[in-house]
Amino acid sequence: MKTNPGRFFEDYSLGEVIVHAVPRTVSGGERALYHALYPARHALHSSDEFARACGLPAAPLDDLIAFHTVFGKTVPDISLNAIANLGYAEGRWLKPVWPGDTIRSESTVIGLKQNSNGTSGVVYVRTRGLNQHGEAVLEYVRWVMVRKRDPEAPAPEAVVPDLKKSVPADAIVLPEGLDFTRYDTTLVGEAHRWGDYAVGERIDHVDGVTVEEAEHMLATRLWQNTAKVHFDRTQRPDGKRLIYGGHVISLARALSFNGLANAQMIVALNAGAHANPCFAGDTVRAWSEVLDKAETGAPGVGALRLRLVAVKDGAAPFALKDEAGKYLPEVLLDLDYWALMPI
Amino acid sequence: MKTNPGRFFEDYSLGEVIVHAVPRTVSGGERALYHALYPARHALHSSDEFARACGLPAAPLDDLIAFHTVFGKTVPDISLNAIANLGYAEGRWLKPVWPGDTIRSESTVIGLKQNSNGTSGVVYVRTRGLNQHGEAVLEYVRWVMVRKRDPEAPAPEAVVPDLKKSVPADAIVLPEGLDFTRYDTTLVGEAHRWGDYAVGERIDHVDGVTVEEAEHMLATRLWQNTAKVHFDRTQRPDGKRLIYGGHVISLARALSFNGLANAQMIVALNAGAHANPCFAGDTVRAWSEVLDKAETGAPGVGALRLRLVAVKDGAAPFALKDEAGKYLPEVLLDLDYWALMPI
Amino acid sequence: MKTNPGRFFEDYSLGEVIVHAVPRTVSGGERALYHALYPARHALHSSDEFARACGLPAAPLDDLIAFHTVFGKTVPDISLNAIANLGYAEGRWLKPVWPGDTIRSESTVIGLKQNSNGTSGVVYVRTRGLNQHGEAVLEYVRWVMVRKRDPEAPAPEAVVPDLKKSVPADAIVLPEGLDFTRYDTTLVGEAHRWGDYAVGERIDHVDGVTVEEAEHMLATRLWQNTAKVHFDRTQRPDGKRLIYGGHVISLARALSFNGLANAQMIVALNAGAHANPCFAGDTVRAWSEVLDKAETGAPGVGALRLRLVAVKDGAAPFALKDEAGKYLPEVLLDLDYWALMPI
Repeated sequence: MKTNPGRFFEDYSLGEVIVHAVPRTVSGGERALYHALYPARHALHSSDEFARACGLPAAPLDDLIAFHTVFGKTVPDISLNAIANLGYAEGRWLKPVWPGDTIRSESTVIGLKQNSNGTSGVVYVRTRGLNQHGEAVLEYVRWVMVRKRDPEAPAPEAVVPDLKKSVPADAIVLPEGLDFTRYDTTLVGEAHRWGDYAVGERIDHVDGVTVEEAEHMLATRLWQNTAKVHFDRTQRPDGKRLIYGGHVISLARALSFNGLANAQMIVALNAGAHANPCFAGDTVRAWSEVLDKAETGAPGVGALRLRLVAVKDGAAPFALKDEAGKYLPEVLLDLDYWALMPI
Repeated sequence: MKTNPGRFFEDYSLGEVIVHAVPRTVSGGERALYHALYPARHALHSSDEFARACGLPAAPLDDLIAFHTVFGKTVPDISLNAIANLGYAEGRWLKPVWPGDTIRSESTVIGLKQNSNGTSGVVYVRTRGLNQHGEAVLEYVRWVMVRKRDPEAPAPEAVVPDLKKSVPADAIVLPEGLDFTRYDTTLVGEAHRWGDYAVGERIDHVDGVTVEEAEHMLATRLWQNTAKVHFDRTQRPDGKRLIYGGHVISLARALSFNGLANAQMIVALNAGAHANPCFAGDTVRAWSEVLDKAETGAPGVGALRLRLVAVKDGAAPFALKDEAGKYLPEVLLDLDYWALMPI
Repeated sequence: MKTNPGRFFEDYSLGEVIVHAVPRTVSGGERALYHALYPARHALHSSDEFARACGLPAAPLDDLIAFHTVFGKTVPDISLNAIANLGYAEGRWLKPVWPGDTIRSESTVIGLKQNSNGTSGVVYVRTRGLNQHGEAVLEYVRWVMVRKRDPEAPAPEAVVPDLKKSVPADAIVLPEGLDFTRYDTTLVGEAHRWGDYAVGERIDHVDGVTVEEAEHMLATRLWQNTAKVHFDRTQRPDGKRLIYGGHVISLARALSFNGLANAQMIVALNAGAHANPCFAGDTVRAWSEVLDKAETGAPGVGALRLRLVAVKDGAAPFALKDEAGKYLPEVLLDLDYWALMPI
């Protein structure tokens, strides 16, 4: 058979490095599409002038363009036969991605654990995105539950990696040259700086977006993500197309501009759960909670650790979990990340 | 509260200059998206070669890309709490916008008049779009009806600016170097030149476009326009998403290619009314009327003042107003502008 | 009348050259949109680095971007009043199209034959796409059935061009510098090379895409294709918008990546039939058959002649024609082309 059936649980071996296919050169076209697909307004990614005033040579592409591009390439090798996308950890943005860069991805299998039912298992990979100079632009750990092809295949020795609960502030990598001492909040649209946010503070981002099929499919294809359930309504018994979880991440992050406009760059992904599926017709909203704060070595730059929650129609204010600790049905996403902010 | 509640009527003061947020660098990506979103075919904006034959260094971005980009930035400060977008006047395009330019906006409050009911008022602003060199690329006056936060807030002294009914032909600013003496109508697709149009002439542009939710949302987001009613179906009691009026302007302008293919550049906006709301599913058509003609100082370049009317399903030919002078329900847009044409 | 009514059968004369309107400068924006509109993943068009490793100066735009751009320009002159798009032949890609190129089109009328009913006729044109240097980038023959304006207009002398059943392998034009000796299948995503495919082999490409109205309209507008039936739901009695046949070509070609990932460049179009109409809501799948194989003069480069068939919901495996030789109702497209592959 010439087509790619995807890998099954028994096809992974510990320590294996998987080189993912289809390198991709990005341009101003991806930026324009990102602005059309999401209500993204962070000034550092929108304006070359603003980025230069912050010490960068030009506006980098949105940090989530880098994430989606790197992630999309892993799908044919990692998650084509996945039953569930279980989690993220130890994500760090290592270099900005600029128009003209060519991005590719590779993953190392760092953990394997067969489920007790014997028909599936959990695969842990550390994925790195690389640019045309061979420099890492992004790395993160993801673990997914993958079907076995043959339930009789022997279980591998169980190895579960020891993952950090969150990226320590001193492990954050700052873009070379970043300097917020001349940062102009007027051009950003909000006056609130790092010092204005307190740990425990919660922000309702107010705005909402009703999602269309065409939008999430355009976005998901743009990242060359090939998972069938996003595009083909015959894949699920209910005839619905499941929206790529990364689409919800980008929507929520863009919505969080209203209240976190100065949280300019995402520099670390601590954890993330796609709590419930999202479908076309849902109206997505977002709220954030400040989890932690840290200083950084760059002039005028502070870091804020944020929980970003996406919810849909019918969610109560700051909806998250029920008393049993289970995500409420209206909760779509619970993401934990570090962003940079002017002090 | 960290989120932007928008301004209310009592938050504006006469003479105040509002610097709008989020400068934006545009590229070939915005041009490609414009061609995907609208049936735009004007050769000067489509082809670098054609633009060079007309004395320009390259093809500028569509004049309405400039308009929407500048306009979108004003929404969070001017029209987030607007009840109605009442009118435009004295609009002039002052410099072409090129790929690579960074655009920002600022507005001066030039008029304020509280309504007799005491709960709202009309705000007049003169908005300017600026490029990265600080040069004005566009200016226009807009007035909107804005809610008061506190009905008890005192009314400001009423000041209604004295606005020109239309931009005088001699106030039109011509792009530097523009020269239509070598203009090739074959490459444009129509033979009709400035001399072929007569004042009073009306043109039915024949074509129609049925609008989808995904399209108008992609477009409106692309201009970083944040008005909730365009994106969130829970904002209106009828569950409909209101289409950004500028989307209808661009649709109608692009449709007007068929009959006005040589009306290459929009150089002035004299007046404009969004007569009725547009919703997804509507099929939009357009017709034009020649209102005036003028010569210009540029070689081979004439100016045509045009009324551009967008209508939807069920409109009679050249539908506009009823006997009482009220817009017919099928009329979406009544726009008055100057365009440049080869003599 | 100022608008373009399109040409009718009696408006064409044998040997006439029609210069089509609206030259178009393409950029990375068109590439990004192509990746958003279609699940395109061929590495040579995705990555500048990969293209350079194959001897090209950078990644050319997708071969079908060139085709659609050239084709779209012909619509106002050739197929605005067409009853049916009957066929393609002798198509050859002659030069890659790069970001920054400006493309225009011209067609020569090479055949005319009035139908026996006297109300329509078949027009054969050879269309060439040209870049800003006047170099041909693409040529193909297309024939369409066109209405007569006046049934009484005299029939022209019937001339039916003698067209090749397929482009001979030695007439294929190879992109300058193309060299597959350092070709890396890992980065492409599939190991199957030219030697792994046998004439007669059929490949089910497995994946499917459910099509939305917004998507096909964005795509068709992007190519400045003005045929009314694609955009205006009032054009057909059933209220449906007919999907541009080229949208199905691009969908099927992109889907064929899964099983033909190394069929990097389309270099010839031998024949093509839009067997049945496609509408929004259809889920499109594709299968291929290897029709022929040939060596080429370029290092490491072989050619594969492929039948690409697009089908929709309900199609049986490898659906094509019924016993009477008529296309089955689920078949949308039957395309015959040459592609280049590493030996």
